Amino acid sequence: MEEKLVKEIEQEGVSRRQVLAGTGALAAGAILSHVGGLISPAVAKDGTTEQWPWPYEKLDPEKTAQLAYEEWYRVFCGAAVISSIFSQLREKVGGPYNSFPIDSFIYLEGGQAGWGTICGAPAGANMVFNLIIGPRKPLTDNTTAHEMCIDIMEWYSKANMPIYMPKNPKVTAELPHTVSNSPLCHLSVGRWMKAANKPLASPERKDRCARVAASTAYRAVELLNDWKDGKYKATGEFNCGKIHGITGQQNCNDCHGANIPEAPKAPPEAPKAPEAPKKA
Amino acid sequence: MEEKLVKEIEQEGVSRRQVLAGTGALAAGAILSHVGGLISPAVAKDGTTEQWPWPYEKLDPEKTAQLAYEEWYRVFCGAAVISSIFSQLREKVGGPYNSFPIDSFIYLEGGQAGWGTICGAPAGANMVFNLIIGPRKPLTDNTTAHEMCIDIMEWYSKANMPIYMPKNPKVTAELPHTVSNSPLCHLSVGRWMKAANKPLASPERKDRCARVAASTAYRAVELLNDWKDGKYKATGEFNCGKIHGITGQQNCNDCHGANIPEAPKAPPEAPKAPEAPKKA
Repeated sequence: MEEKLVKEIEQEGVSRRQVLAGTGALAAGAILSHVGGLISPAVAKDGTTEQWPWPYEKLDPEKTAQLAYEEWYRVFCGAAVISSIFSQLREKVGGPYNSFPIDSFIYLEGGQAGWGTICGAPAGANMVFNLIIGPRKPLTDNTTAHEMCIDIMEWYSKANMPIYMPKNPKVTAELPHTVSNSPLCHLSVGRWMKAANKPLASPERKDRCARVAASTAYRAVELLNDWKDGKYKATGEFNCGKIHGITGQQNCNDCHGANIPEAPKAPPEAPKAPEAPKKA
Repeated sequence: MEEKLVKEIEQEGVSRRQVLAGTGALAAGAILSHVGGLISPAVAKDGTTEQWPWPYEKLDPEKTAQLAYEEWYRVFCGAAVISSIFSQLREKVGGPYNSFPIDSFIYLEGGQAGWGTICGAPAGANMVFNLIIGPRKPLTDNTTAHEMCIDIMEWYSKANMPIYMPKNPKVTAELPHTVSNSPLCHLSVGRWMKAANKPLASPERKDRCARVAASTAYRAVELLNDWKDGKYKATGEFNCGKIHGITGQQNCNDCHGANIPEAPKAPPEAPKAPEAPKKA
């Protein structure tokens, strides 16, 4: 996984040497001077919020999911996932969680202000991972949050949603379950609406989305608890950049049908000159 | 615009009465008690980061764009947009900007950890608007940040990117310009790669993305400066929920071709009973 990430980061414009040397603030400084050195690395001035990992105490996934379900009816999917985890950590830990403005993230609903891009549930979980565990190499010596984003987006795309069944659900009729094959709100909600034959404004669609947020918060806490116990292993396998040479999801056929285009490829590397014979 | 937003919020499960009564924390409490009252509204414990708007001083769009361009080579698109604006506001204002962990948001690159969902540039701008101006109704009495998200995603989708030309660009060859017709990374980057015939890992693609982040930071600051001057007017017109009854982007044909499905619709409202005659 480490090697894979090094390759991905290289694609984004950081050399292998920089990545492999990338351990903490020192590395960020080294990279900075390499690319121009015009801007200092951002360090939050109170000295705690840009030092990772943020202190984490294990949470109960069930309790977290129920909180997320209820919070959906106040702040919708993205902020509900963030709030369900951070509201508990404010109580248990305090510190950096106290100053993080949870309610700002209501805009993640509907795939960001209703535009149907990434569902707020994985968008909120991705944010939580990166706030708690910290940014990836080369800014830190850690690739875990990056890997956890890939894991939860892959998990979300394959899950038969909604998974979590709340206590005292607002809608008591049985809801259909669907697989989105994508982390996008438009596809996740659209496939469910088609299967359920329910409109966007229906109580059933709303409760389905509240349960999707709850299901994602549950899974996010499972991953974070594993990480806290030193048991987390990255499981995500999809890498569109490797397969097709472009950033992407795993549902290529949804838009491309059978004709998935190949992105322009880098020219093959020139053969290396033979090494000079070693001196005896 | 106000009326449109009220309708959108209604679709998400909040009643018209609640929305129209939604002025600040009091309204949040009222809504909360309506939907169950199990969770207190999140209020950051230091008392400054969840009070909106955050103090804002007008910034120079040109300087901000150049900062974003340079920051791309450290933290990629999403965090570059956030950093270009917040690093200046840390100097000019301090306060809530000091504790916001900018560098966590490196994961917005590549449409969130390389998954090709929303481009980090509009994702970062959306975040900045909602952190500074504050969340929409019903949590506050303000719809501006919500409208600004729609504006910048529509602007991004129609822009002939990249627009901003940095001082001392790392790539000096002329780069092609393309219109993404979408805020998604996969489409924005993919269309440009096809036009340029350059691979993902090429210096040209990287510099194109750095300039896209810079262009978006420039536009974000123009909108924020207008808002500060009391001159901001929402201009975004696309509303997929209204047109097709589902969250979505404006590029329906990209995936659906000519056959854009209609989402399940709500049954027509029952005719209202005639009002009782008024007493004389």
